[in-house]
Amino acid sequence: MASNDAMKKLELLGKSMVSEVKKGEGPTFETTLRTKSNTIFDEAVGCLRTGDKKEVRKFLSVAQARTFMQTVAIANKTRQFLKEDLHTSIRGLFYQLKFSLGEDIDEDLFTEQSESNGLIEDLEVALKIKREDLHLTTDRKGFVAGPMTILDRFGGDETIIDLEKQGRSGWSIPSDVDNGMEITKLDADYVLVVEKDALWQRLNEDKFWKKENCILVTPKGQSTRGTRRLLRKLADRKLPVYCLMDCDAWGWYIYWTIKTGSMNLAYLGRDFAVPEAKFLGVTMSDIEEFSFLDKLTIKAKEVDVKRAEEMLGYPWINRHKDWVHELKLVLKTKKKIEQDALQGERLTFVGEYINNKIKKKEWLS
Amino acid sequence: MASNDAMKKLELLGKSMVSEVKKGEGPTFETTLRTKSNTIFDEAVGCLRTGDKKEVRKFLSVAQARTFMQTVAIANKTRQFLKEDLHTSIRGLFYQLKFSLGEDIDEDLFTEQSESNGLIEDLEVALKIKREDLHLTTDRKGFVAGPMTILDRFGGDETIIDLEKQGRSGWSIPSDVDNGMEITKLDADYVLVVEKDALWQRLNEDKFWKKENCILVTPKGQSTRGTRRLLRKLADRKLPVYCLMDCDAWGWYIYWTIKTGSMNLAYLGRDFAVPEAKFLGVTMSDIEEFSFLDKLTIKAKEVDVKRAEEMLGYPWINRHKDWVHELKLVLKTKKKIEQDALQGERLTFVGEYINNKIKKKEWLS
Repeated sequence: MASNDAMKKLELLGKSMVSEVKKGEGPTFETTLRTKSNTIFDEAVGCLRTGDKKEVRKFLSVAQARTFMQTVAIANKTRQFLKEDLHTSIRGLFYQLKFSLGEDIDEDLFTEQSESNGLIEDLEVALKIKREDLHLTTDRKGFVAGPMTILDRFGGDETIIDLEKQGRSGWSIPSDVDNGMEITKLDADYVLVVEKDALWQRLNEDKFWKKENCILVTPKGQSTRGTRRLLRKLADRKLPVYCLMDCDAWGWYIYWTIKTGSMNLAYLGRDFAVPEAKFLGVTMSDIEEFSFLDKLTIKAKEVDVKRAEEMLGYPWINRHKDWVHELKLVLKTKKKIEQDALQGERLTFVGEYINNKIKKKEWLS
Repeated sequence: MASNDAMKKLELLGKSMVSEVKKGEGPTFETTLRTKSNTIFDEAVGCLRTGDKKEVRKFLSVAQARTFMQTVAIANKTRQFLKEDLHTSIRGLFYQLKFSLGEDIDEDLFTEQSESNGLIEDLEVALKIKREDLHLTTDRKGFVAGPMTILDRFGGDETIIDLEKQGRSGWSIPSDVDNGMEITKLDADYVLVVEKDALWQRLNEDKFWKKENCILVTPKGQSTRGTRRLLRKLADRKLPVYCLMDCDAWGWYIYWTIKTGSMNLAYLGRDFAVPEAKFLGVTMSDIEEFSFLDKLTIKAKEVDVKRAEEMLGYPWINRHKDWVHELKLVLKTKKKIEQDALQGERLTFVGEYINNKIKKKEWLS
């Protein structure tokens, strides 16, 4: 169990600090730098990750004493959560710290919205574990339906969840898909990720996952950590992962976060990335192929244009001729197109579109 | 089935317009005014609703021709969705309209985020139906666990969903909890609504719904239409509905929207309101009762203070002495307190807090 591993690592951290104190030294804490300059694109793996630059934090340093103390307090609290076998959110952790340490806590660091919580990231990176292993829950979003069964050990119960029998709702991807959770049956040909829940519902109504024997996933916008981990696990089972996103700044960002990870969370590395992912659409080139789409484009916003320009600058993107072609079309036409537009002529067209793209291997890598 | 009813109403609307044209008159469309001045608090029922002021829209009016035509186009499209027995989002509807009508459509009116979609509201109010009955899906959020079973007829399948067997994820409340969906088993003593998903997860881990024999619901922030309808249905089954929210502007707003509806969506009336709902907490008075909470308050923001002042002005709030006392405490102390703070001393305290409040009938109405 990852939690046992986490417990051992937390205790080792504590013991090493105690031994430093006993030797008459100030306690220290080594972590990997999560700065932009220490973020690299790992060519061999195909994802963003932190480099090798380390940083040693010292308790006996005016600049570092406060965050050092807070990091140790977090290690202590999460060790207690592991012992009690209870989970809480980072907001719950904030109040536990506030109760113990008083006013000296920056509350803005402990919200569901602060994707990047420096103090917890320090622990994750230093101990090479995930915050989920420390019993910290993160915001969840995203749904799944398809030929897959989950065994969920939670709160003292064992539950079998059959993702073919979830009706209109689907299965909500939890914060933690590793600890106490297993995929016990998986009999699919591929994974389809659609950006928006509305389109997921459309495809779920058409029983797309049944007809195509696929796992139908929506991250419901940007992917949560739970969704990224689940997609990684499915890719590890050798399922191809196809993505259907909007053709705009946000859609591209969602796709590339799934594929390579994001700059902010690069320290998570391959465990949260799916370099194998393919981009099915929607593409600017689709407008030429499907004439009805021509009147369903909308004007690209400044953010779309700026993002397209940025992406052309990333070496891991601009090596792909098809992506360069796409992005240049956006810059030229100043148009964008949403996945919802695929429903413009007929509600059921979207399934045919996906099926066709996969058959013809028409995707961007 | 509500959808049959919707079909009849759409066809009646069409027929009445055709007969007006045949009589040599321009077609008209009568709807109820959804202005602030025609929004009233219904004392007898205990919720906000629109008053009786009507408005007649005319096709042969320069000012109204465009929206009139669009409204008729929406009626036509949704009739087609009903015939096909397919659902789509309002964004999907937008693209269907754009495909048929061309550029003359305001896209900002058709996003998940535009809570208030004037054209669709016109139809809802005029025909006395819900947009869900027109096969339009709305954004979904919110989760449930507890002693309740759902029969979900969807996409040609019938699925039984046991809300005691959903593991860590719970059951995601869909957009439409009426059409093709039934509560087939319900054996609970009350409904508990907690504002945040993180606290719902905490209570789900503690199996609070099992220990207390209750239905555990989170709207995950502001309630969606689906969540409000579900709560109304549970209240119709004579279950008390208790709410645990943050003690701040947003928490109060979420509570009062559940209880009385909101100004914006007042036209939905009692079908989407639960006047029976009680506010368990968190309250400013809790700080006096539970000493550990004293150091877990945070500074009220301007929006909290402003909201408290506004609420003191609403006649349906300021008649309740306990609410007046609460809100004045906020104005005096300029503090607020979040539901997450209940975990500050012990993660499992929140369940005891709720149990105790209900036993002692300590709530605000």
